[in-house]
Amino acid sequence: MLEIQGIAVSQGIAFANAYCLKEPDLSYEEIKVADVDAELERFKVAVMKTKAELQEIYEIAQKKFGAEKAAIFAAHLLVLEDPEMLAAIEAKIQTGMNAEFALDEASNMFIAMFEGLDNVYMQERVADIRDVSKRVLANLLGVEMVDMNRRLASDVIIVAKDLTPSMTAMLDTKYVKGFITDIGGKTSHSAILARTLEIPAVVGTKNATQDIQHGAPIIIDGTNGKIIVNATSEVSSFYRQQQRIYNEENEELLQYRSLQSISADGFSVEIAGNIGNPEDAEMVINAGGDGIGLFRTEFLYMERQELPTEEEQFQAYKSVLEKMQGKPTIVRTLDIGGDKNLPYLKLADEMNPFLGYRAIRISLTQQEMFRVQLRALLRASAYGNLKIMFPMIATLDEFKMAKAILLEEKQSLTNDGYLISETLEVGMMIEIPSAAIIADLFAKEVDFFSIGTNDLIQYTLAADRMNENVSYLYQPYHPAVLRLIKNVIDAAQRQGKWVGMCGEMAADEIALPILLGFGLNEFSMSASSILKTRAHIAKLSKQQLMPHNERILQLSTASEVEEYVKNNLLGLS
Amino acid sequence: MLEIQGIAVSQGIAFANAYCLKEPDLSYEEIKVADVDAELERFKVAVMKTKAELQEIYEIAQKKFGAEKAAIFAAHLLVLEDPEMLAAIEAKIQTGMNAEFALDEASNMFIAMFEGLDNVYMQERVADIRDVSKRVLANLLGVEMVDMNRRLASDVIIVAKDLTPSMTAMLDTKYVKGFITDIGGKTSHSAILARTLEIPAVVGTKNATQDIQHGAPIIIDGTNGKIIVNATSEVSSFYRQQQRIYNEENEELLQYRSLQSISADGFSVEIAGNIGNPEDAEMVINAGGDGIGLFRTEFLYMERQELPTEEEQFQAYKSVLEKMQGKPTIVRTLDIGGDKNLPYLKLADEMNPFLGYRAIRISLTQQEMFRVQLRALLRASAYGNLKIMFPMIATLDEFKMAKAILLEEKQSLTNDGYLISETLEVGMMIEIPSAAIIADLFAKEVDFFSIGTNDLIQYTLAADRMNENVSYLYQPYHPAVLRLIKNVIDAAQRQGKWVGMCGEMAADEIALPILLGFGLNEFSMSASSILKTRAHIAKLSKQQLMPHNERILQLSTASEVEEYVKNNLLGLS
Repeated sequence: MLEIQGIAVSQGIAFANAYCLKEPDLSYEEIKVADVDAELERFKVAVMKTKAELQEIYEIAQKKFGAEKAAIFAAHLLVLEDPEMLAAIEAKIQTGMNAEFALDEASNMFIAMFEGLDNVYMQERVADIRDVSKRVLANLLGVEMVDMNRRLASDVIIVAKDLTPSMTAMLDTKYVKGFITDIGGKTSHSAILARTLEIPAVVGTKNATQDIQHGAPIIIDGTNGKIIVNATSEVSSFYRQQQRIYNEENEELLQYRSLQSISADGFSVEIAGNIGNPEDAEMVINAGGDGIGLFRTEFLYMERQELPTEEEQFQAYKSVLEKMQGKPTIVRTLDIGGDKNLPYLKLADEMNPFLGYRAIRISLTQQEMFRVQLRALLRASAYGNLKIMFPMIATLDEFKMAKAILLEEKQSLTNDGYLISETLEVGMMIEIPSAAIIADLFAKEVDFFSIGTNDLIQYTLAADRMNENVSYLYQPYHPAVLRLIKNVIDAAQRQGKWVGMCGEMAADEIALPILLGFGLNEFSMSASSILKTRAHIAKLSKQQLMPHNERILQLSTASEVEEYVKNNLLGLS
Repeated sequence: MLEIQGIAVSQGIAFANAYCLKEPDLSYEEIKVADVDAELERFKVAVMKTKAELQEIYEIAQKKFGAEKAAIFAAHLLVLEDPEMLAAIEAKIQTGMNAEFALDEASNMFIAMFEGLDNVYMQERVADIRDVSKRVLANLLGVEMVDMNRRLASDVIIVAKDLTPSMTAMLDTKYVKGFITDIGGKTSHSAILARTLEIPAVVGTKNATQDIQHGAPIIIDGTNGKIIVNATSEVSSFYRQQQRIYNEENEELLQYRSLQSISADGFSVEIAGNIGNPEDAEMVINAGGDGIGLFRTEFLYMERQELPTEEEQFQAYKSVLEKMQGKPTIVRTLDIGGDKNLPYLKLADEMNPFLGYRAIRISLTQQEMFRVQLRALLRASAYGNLKIMFPMIATLDEFKMAKAILLEEKQSLTNDGYLISETLEVGMMIEIPSAAIIADLFAKEVDFFSIGTNDLIQYTLAADRMNENVSYLYQPYHPAVLRLIKNVIDAAQRQGKWVGMCGEMAADEIALPILLGFGLNEFSMSASSILKTRAHIAKLSKQQLMPHNERILQLSTASEVEEYVKNNLLGLS
C-alpha cells in the first residue's frame, strides 16, 4: 500500500484503476535488415493498423464533439495516404534500413522541410506528421499508445503530469472517476475541470506519475488530498464508509435543486454556473443553476488552424441559449493572451503576459475577429436570454469602444433583416483594479458588472497566483479586495444596475456571508458548487449581515477577516 | 547629412562626435604558422599590451569608483597571469597554430571546464576569461576595443543598442554630452541616467547604431527627439541658436537653486532627488534639492559575486548622509527581483516577474540579507537625517514584520553600544493597489508614505509599462490612479503623516497642479527636474487648486484629466 498526499481541489471519494497518461517508450534500434520484403510488409501492416485506429478515433470524436473537432483526425489519416511520404519511407527500407529507422528518418525530413516554411498551415502539418509517425512507430514496436483518444472501457482515475485543455477536450468523461496530477494548484485547469465534472481531484502530488503504475487500483480522496494505491482491505472499507457519508450529504443537497436561490430573510439572488463549452451547460441545468454567469468562448478558438466562422460561433451560442430555456446566459467575449495562446494569431512572447496584450486589448485592435464574434452573438440573442460581457476592461474608453462596435454590428445585422433581442444586456468584467476603483463611472454605461476575482486579486496584490513563491499573497479576504468589491456593488446599485461574481471566490464559504451582506446579486461558479451555495445562502440573513459591513471593511488583514466571519457571521441565520 | 528621429527622453541640445559602443570585429583566420617562435613572441606582446591596458583601467576605476568596483579588473589581470592558461595557449602555438586560434581554443576549453561547475564564483571566472580573451584577441588583430572602460579624451555622444546598468557604472560621464540608443522608452535606464546627468538623450531610434559611424559629428536635440549626422552649416547654426535659447532658459531656472520650495500662496513642499548611488547625491545638492526622496540601494548588490558586507553598506549610506548635511534622506531597502536579478541569489525564472518574488517579499524570506542591510542603515542613521522605507508592501503583516525586524536589530545594536538616531522615520512605498486602498490602516503604522507611481500605475491598469503593445494603458492621469493617490494623501493627513512621491509622475507638468491641490508634501525626481519643478510650484496656488479636487476625481478618462488641467489649472496662480 502506498499513500500519496497532494492538494485537495475537488471533493469526493472514488475507487478505480489508474489510467496513466505517460508517453510510451518508443525507442528502437537501428538494424540492417536482410529480408527487405518482409520489412516492407511489416511496415504496411503497421500503417494499416494505424489507419484503423485513426478511423475509429475520428468516428468517436465526430459523434462526441462534432465534425469540426474531429477534423484533426481526418488530417492525420491524410498523412498516411500521402504517396510521397510513403514512397520515401519504402525507399529507405529498400536500402536495408529497418522500418522504425526508415519511418523516423523520412518523417524528420518532411518535418524539417515544412518547418522551414513560415506558414501556420505548414506548422500544423508538422504537428500532424509527428503525431502520426509516433502512432505508426508504436504499432511497429507493438507498444500500446496510452492516450485519451482511445475509447475507455471501464472506470478509471486519470494520472498525468498535468492536464492541458487540448487533452481534456478529447477526454471521454463517462468513465473518468477522478484526476491526479503531478503539478498544479486550486485554480489549475485540471482542478476546475474536476469540479465541473463533480469528480474528486488531487493535484500537486509532484511524483504521482512516477509512483503510480498504469492499471493499479487506487482510491482518491479529493476532500483531503489523499491517494491510496493498492489499499489494504481495512483501508478500503474505511474509504467505502467515507464515500457513503459523502454521498449521503450530497443527497441532502439535492433537495435544493428545485428550490429558489433565496436568503433566510427573503433576499433573492441568482446562483449560476461557469462553463467552458456548450456541453457543460447540461451540468449547470442538472445542478439546478439559475443561469450561466460565465460562458468562456475560448474553446471555439483553440485547437484549430484558423479563426472560427460566424456561423460556427452562432451555432455554439444558440445551442447553449436554447438549452438554458430563457435563463440568463452571460457570454464573455474572447479572453485570449495571458497564459492562453492561439498559435495562428502569432502573438509575441511577453515578459509579463498577465500584464500584457490580452482579451479586450486584442479584440479592440484585431477588430475583424471581434466583429465576427459579436455578429454571431447578436444573431444568437434571438434564441434565449443572452447577456454579453467584455473582459479585462481598464478604461472607460475601452468599454465605450467595444460597445460602439457592438452597436455598429447590431445595426448592420438589423439592416440585413436578422432578428436581434431587444433586451440584450451589455456588461463588463471587473477584474482590473482601475475598473473597480472607477466603477461609479462605468456604472452609468453598463447594464451589469461581473467581478472576476481571480484576476482582480492578483492585480490588486501584484502577485501572480500561479507563482508558488508569492501565492501566499493571493488573498481573497484582503481588506483591499473586499473594499473594491463593496465599491463596485455600491456604485452599481446607485445606478440601478446588478452585480455578479464569476471568480473562485463566489463559491467560497467564508466569502459568502460577506458578499451577501454587501448586496451581491449573482454568484457564478462551477456546477458542482451550486447546490451547496444555495443551501448556505438559505441559512443566511442579509438583514443581519449588513450591519457588519462597515466593521468588516475596517479589518486590517485577510486573517482578521476570516476570524471575524467565523466568529460573527457563520452563526447568523 | 542624415536626420534620425527617436523618442525624446531628456532635454537639451549637444554637439559632439559619435562614440559607438559596438562589438569590434574580432574574426580571424585559422592559419598554420611556419615561424613558431615569432608567433610566440607576437602572443607575448599582445598579452603585455593587454596587461598594460587593464592596469590603466584598474587605476582609473579605483580612483573613480573605489577599490570595490575596480576589483573586477584586478581579477582580469589575474587571468593573464594564470600559468596554466598561458601554458595551454603556448603549447597550441608550438604545434603551429596561429596565436588567435590557439587563444580561442584554449580559452574555450577553460570556459567549458568552469561552466560545468555549479558554482557562482566559477561562473564569474567564465565571464572574466571571456572578457580578457577578447581583449588579447583585439590586440593580436590590432583592432581597437571600443569600450566604456577607456579614458575618454574629448566630448562624445554615446551611441549604443541599449545601456545596461553595468555599462553605465563604468562610464566616465565628464565627456559624455548625450545618449542615443536603438531601443528603450521614457523610463528605460538610459533615459533616467540622461536626466540625472542633465544631458540630452534620444532613445528608440531603432537603427542608430547601424546608421551612425563611430567618430561622426552629430547634433542631438533631446527636446524634440532628433539626431543630425554630418549637419550642413545652415543646420548647425540653427541648432547653435536653439542651444543658446535652451541654455538661457536654463539660466533663468538657476535663480531657484537657493530659493525655498513653496507655492505662490505659501504652502511649503519638499522637492527632493532620486539617486541610484552615492555619487549622484552631489547632483541633487548642485540642483538645490531639499533632500533625497529615493536612494535606491541595488547598486550595492550588483556587479559582484557575493552580498555586500554590513561595513561596506554602512560606509555607502554614511557617505550620502554626510553629504546631505542633515537634509532628509530616504533609503529604500533592497528592491531586487522583477526585471533586476542578482546571479548569486539564484532566483528562479518567473512567468510574470513583475507579479513575482521581489523586493520586500525576498527580504522577509531571506532575512539574513535584510538584517545586514538594516544594521548598516541603523548605524549610518547617526550621521544625518535618515528615513528608511520598504518597497512593494501589499499587506499590513508585511510592514509589521519588516518593522519588527528593524526594531530587533536596533535593540541589538544599541546593546552593542552603537549610537542610533532617535528620530529615524520608518515608512513604506505605496506602489501596489492593495496598499493604496488600505492606506488608512497603514497610516497608523508608518511615519510616512512614498508613492511609487511607475509600479502603482502598471498594477492598477494591469499593463506592463515595458510592453509596447499595452503601453497606451500606462496612464498616469487615469482617474483610478488619481483617486488612489488622493486616498493615500487623505489617509496620511488624518493620522498627521506626510506623503511623498518618487515616481516619474512627481516631475510631470500636468500632474503637478493636481498633486499640489491634493496636498502632496514631497516631490522626488531626477536632479535635472528639481529646479523646473520648484519654479512651477512657485507659480501655483494650493488654495486655488483645492476646490478643483472633487471635479478632477469625477472626470472619466486620462485625456479628460489632461484637458481639464490645461484649461483650468495651468493658468491659476
